[in-house]
Amino acid sequence: MQTLRVDLGERAYPIHIGEHLLSSAGLILPQLDLPRVAIVTDTTVAALYLQRLAQALQAGGVEIVTIVLEGGERSKDWATLNRIYDALLGHRCDRKTTLIALGGGVVGDIAGFAAATYMRGIPFIQAPTTLLAQVDSSIGGKTGINHPLGKNMIGAFYQPRMVLADTSVLESLPRRELCAGMAEVIKHGLIRDGEFFVWLEQNMEKLLACDQQALAHAVRRCCEIKAAVVAEDERETSVRALLNFGHTFGHAIESGLGYGKWLHGEAVAAGMVMAAELSRRMGLIKRADVDRITALLGRASLPIAPPGIAPGLLLELMGVDKKAEGGKLRFVLLDAIGAASIRTDIPTAPLQQVLAFSAPD
Amino acid sequence: MQTLRVDLGERAYPIHIGEHLLSSAGLILPQLDLPRVAIVTDTTVAALYLQRLAQALQAGGVEIVTIVLEGGERSKDWATLNRIYDALLGHRCDRKTTLIALGGGVVGDIAGFAAATYMRGIPFIQAPTTLLAQVDSSIGGKTGINHPLGKNMIGAFYQPRMVLADTSVLESLPRRELCAGMAEVIKHGLIRDGEFFVWLEQNMEKLLACDQQALAHAVRRCCEIKAAVVAEDERETSVRALLNFGHTFGHAIESGLGYGKWLHGEAVAAGMVMAAELSRRMGLIKRADVDRITALLGRASLPIAPPGIAPGLLLELMGVDKKAEGGKLRFVLLDAIGAASIRTDIPTAPLQQVLAFSAPD
Repeated sequence: MQTLRVDLGERAYPIHIGEHLLSSAGLILPQLDLPRVAIVTDTTVAALYLQRLAQALQAGGVEIVTIVLEGGERSKDWATLNRIYDALLGHRCDRKTTLIALGGGVVGDIAGFAAATYMRGIPFIQAPTTLLAQVDSSIGGKTGINHPLGKNMIGAFYQPRMVLADTSVLESLPRRELCAGMAEVIKHGLIRDGEFFVWLEQNMEKLLACDQQALAHAVRRCCEIKAAVVAEDERETSVRALLNFGHTFGHAIESGLGYGKWLHGEAVAAGMVMAAELSRRMGLIKRADVDRITALLGRASLPIAPPGIAPGLLLELMGVDKKAEGGKLRFVLLDAIGAASIRTDIPTAPLQQVLAFSAPD
Repeated sequence: MQTLRVDLGERAYPIHIGEHLLSSAGLILPQLDLPRVAIVTDTTVAALYLQRLAQALQAGGVEIVTIVLEGGERSKDWATLNRIYDALLGHRCDRKTTLIALGGGVVGDIAGFAAATYMRGIPFIQAPTTLLAQVDSSIGGKTGINHPLGKNMIGAFYQPRMVLADTSVLESLPRRELCAGMAEVIKHGLIRDGEFFVWLEQNMEKLLACDQQALAHAVRRCCEIKAAVVAEDERETSVRALLNFGHTFGHAIESGLGYGKWLHGEAVAAGMVMAAELSRRMGLIKRADVDRITALLGRASLPIAPPGIAPGLLLELMGVDKKAEGGKLRFVLLDAIGAASIRTDIPTAPLQQVLAFSAPD
């Protein structure tokens, strides 16, 4: 097992990465205020891992409430959130009940928001079970739900007490989801670590074959990068926005297609190609860099072009994105493979050219 | 104008108290990230004061979005919260739009929760227009909405950037609401300042006649007490719970009657009498103390006895209250007029006797 720390002063917390962490309650028990836990998960993950975690905790004398959601991006809404509140209130869970999110990004986001807002905040532990959640969404305290007019529009910054990334569960992950998570892995290399990007070029097949050593390295490196960025800028007033590389386009794609049609990582992959292409048209990187990026994404079976969506609609969808600021669009662009920066000075022409890329036939 | 400070490190903020503050934008303008403001208010307050505030801001070059709610405790629900989100998204308000809550406790709580959760948090200013909001609910960052199973069950701690308490608006407050606010004023004296309680005994008629000097003194003293308590314990892990004096019974009364039948302050007044009576039965204070408390509440036309609710129901309603901890009921009791403490060691007998007080005829 490897342990990192997200350095956020009084809200600092550890990230544990390793095999078979879910079947040992030893890491969780010392974190509980009272031996009472509510586990929020979805039907898929419940069938595979709920019993494993619940039994480990029960053996440690912990009383368990389980809340099993439908799962999927479309369930990241108020109705599902309210089911969590109802269950917590129905079981008379109080402020000292710890909520554990066992699942992927959707479960982590919605359960995290429930923890942030139930009785104005209860203790919270992330137990991410997808690659995407382990390398990205479980770290940094972003929680929330979607609104019909935009993804993650309702939410809170709320840090967990601990992240427990059990890499052995990734073996049961459907290949499509493993690949979607790989988009965020590649993103970490692109924005902050050119050497890690090269390592990914060399090890992509091992990762896709769930080689535990390779996975542990990739998860660890992503967590290190994300933890450092979050520690520097918890509330995304500056450098944290770099983590949104590919996401301005990606969110518009997700929203334009209807949430859930493409996985988040798939939309981000296409969004990263668009952002890389915009960087090239702005003269920041070379065509050869864009080619390396599309090649690596392609090896992970990720989309390297946006779906057919009218450029005007994409632009409109980006306009209501919460990363818009004072009416101006903000983009994260690449200065090199391994270095990104935030730009608000995008001329219309190259942006239109990149958007045209997405025009339906 | 008088100015206090809530000392919360990087989240510190000023409370300005004085006459005619709403018609001057000079205090607000320097607090805005961008000259864009969403004012959340209710129909009653909008008719009286919205134009005054909006014109002052517009004269300062600020673009305004107004969101007018129905008002009343019953509107502190998800549907109303969602109307705020819809309006903010519909007007494409971004993260640098400042939300101003112009109204009483309900508006402040729900608008504050909207500010806490819209795009994971936007800047927020409290402009309380009721006595209750000026002395209590606008200070300290408690925000939230009600759930059918309990008051304020969904919420967040989210501090405003500023509180603007314009005491001249209290002149238009219906007498019933002024009196309800007086319950919280009296509470501040009871839990923390015996001299202030004596001052209230001497000045209650002036306060009820809206004497501006007396009101300014009372608002200031309550804000000082609350700011000190909040600075010591922002998230209510210890001393902040003292501010809940009368509220465990009070919330059960509100919930048992159905939200909105009694005003919050009225339920708290009856709850404080019950808590004082419980303190007496525990041997902590004398009957003469209880009599002084009921006398002062009575002079403010506040209920000094609970409505007819079956003791069993009251107990059940207290059981799901978020101040319950590990299944044990927590009460704030008086050790004297001006000193309170938190107790979890309440024997059944005196509690039952106090609850019997509430039994219907």
